[in-house]
Amino acid sequence: METQTRELAINPGLVKKFLVEFIREETAKAGFKRLVVGISGGVDSALAAALAVEALGEDNVKGMILPYRETNPESISDANLFASKFNINCETVDITSAAEPLVGLDSSMSKVRRGNILSRLRMIVLYDRSAKENALVLGTSNKTELLLGYGTLFGDMAHAINPLGDLYKTQVWQMAEFVGIPDKIIKKKPSADLWLGQTDEDELGYSYLEIDRALYLLVDHRMTPEELVSAGHNPQLVKDLVKKIIGSQFKRRPPLIAKISPRTINVDFRYLRDWGV
Amino acid sequence: METQTRELAINPGLVKKFLVEFIREETAKAGFKRLVVGISGGVDSALAAALAVEALGEDNVKGMILPYRETNPESISDANLFASKFNINCETVDITSAAEPLVGLDSSMSKVRRGNILSRLRMIVLYDRSAKENALVLGTSNKTELLLGYGTLFGDMAHAINPLGDLYKTQVWQMAEFVGIPDKIIKKKPSADLWLGQTDEDELGYSYLEIDRALYLLVDHRMTPEELVSAGHNPQLVKDLVKKIIGSQFKRRPPLIAKISPRTINVDFRYLRDWGV
Repeated sequence: METQTRELAINPGLVKKFLVEFIREETAKAGFKRLVVGISGGVDSALAAALAVEALGEDNVKGMILPYRETNPESISDANLFASKFNINCETVDITSAAEPLVGLDSSMSKVRRGNILSRLRMIVLYDRSAKENALVLGTSNKTELLLGYGTLFGDMAHAINPLGDLYKTQVWQMAEFVGIPDKIIKKKPSADLWLGQTDEDELGYSYLEIDRALYLLVDHRMTPEELVSAGHNPQLVKDLVKKIIGSQFKRRPPLIAKISPRTINVDFRYLRDWGV
Repeated sequence: METQTRELAINPGLVKKFLVEFIREETAKAGFKRLVVGISGGVDSALAAALAVEALGEDNVKGMILPYRETNPESISDANLFASKFNINCETVDITSAAEPLVGLDSSMSKVRRGNILSRLRMIVLYDRSAKENALVLGTSNKTELLLGYGTLFGDMAHAINPLGDLYKTQVWQMAEFVGIPDKIIKKKPSADLWLGQTDEDELGYSYLEIDRALYLLVDHRMTPEELVSAGHNPQLVKDLVKKIIGSQFKRRPPLIAKISPRTINVDFRYLRDWGV
């Protein structure tokens, strides 16, 4: 599997230093010392958790493994493999008993709907745990999935701070290798594991390398779809990506409020994040 | 109970016309024809649902009543009273069986943590239903609670479009009277009903009228806390409100992403909501 490309190459040492500092600073600025993070057995949550441990120390990072009845057992063993290598204090909470009454609401429920329920239940457990432990929830969504809307709104996309949101998937792989995430986790087929046999690349229809190459030019270099096609990118891929970016804008924005007053939340009332008391 | 004040008086006919148009336009722009809305038995969700029916017609609005074991039975009967007056097609889904395994995770769980779990479970049911019915989730959070952070992030604060987000609570009361929400619902003590006996004003420590008068000057007229105190507002109230506004900024903003690349989501990559294909 070719996973690297020249344009997307990053300086992993520098990026690591920066992301560790980001986690340390933003956690402190928000008034916290601890983080809670869901550990899925995949490469994104492993990288995020490894960076968190580097930033705040083992004692201040709580990993949560949140399996469902149909979660691939390999995901759970990979999550534990990672946690023990990085000395992450991990707890397992099975979400099946909470999920079944919701999944059972509709006998014709699609896999996607069920997947969204599971992702949102995990959010509930992570946020509740963060309240209990006086911690922030650490995000693990990468730039590729955020741009394509390949995540569950108010589910895995719900978190306080996200060190990975500006790294494409192929860059997550580069970083994961650099920080020493087990090879088995880096090399396996990416999957949200919301149903058996699900893989990201099958669902998206293209490899992450093809996708990231095109997204990088579209988003970071502001090239037009036409320019990408002229440069040799697959026209159908380019069309599909632009459609996904536009169709998932709502997932990256706060809810829309009807403006009536002089100052409306998220329209013209937007205090700076860091505005102090 | 005095609930009205000159500064906060609105023209309810004009505001209604505008909000109905907002719902109609934004639902269509997002590519939908239908809305799903949680009906709690309180005045906010009643007003939002009544406006939705006016905008899209009875057949295109689905009300969901989502009680928990400890929900006040009066809330459920008020929800049904409202739904039958406005001909809203309502369905009841009890969330107790999904809630118990989550609430049971910790025997020392606080009321607030349990309340957040319930609010987020309701979000899950509403979003799942919206996927089933090809609908948007309608928000019912008013400006007072959004400014004070008096709502559950990824719970009741999670929705697609919100007609009430720029109306203070006392303005919601004015509008509710104008559109004919049953008096019983308008006059009762506001409560999130997340535990027995909970009332908003007890929890907030002040009446909505006092709060709204101060928020209106602080936010819409950009007066300073010192100016409010000089104008005769309770100094402790002003201090408490400013603290709540600042402390809840994170609930009104998308997650924070570490910036690495030329264009970062929610930093300098923000396509316009209405950017078309």
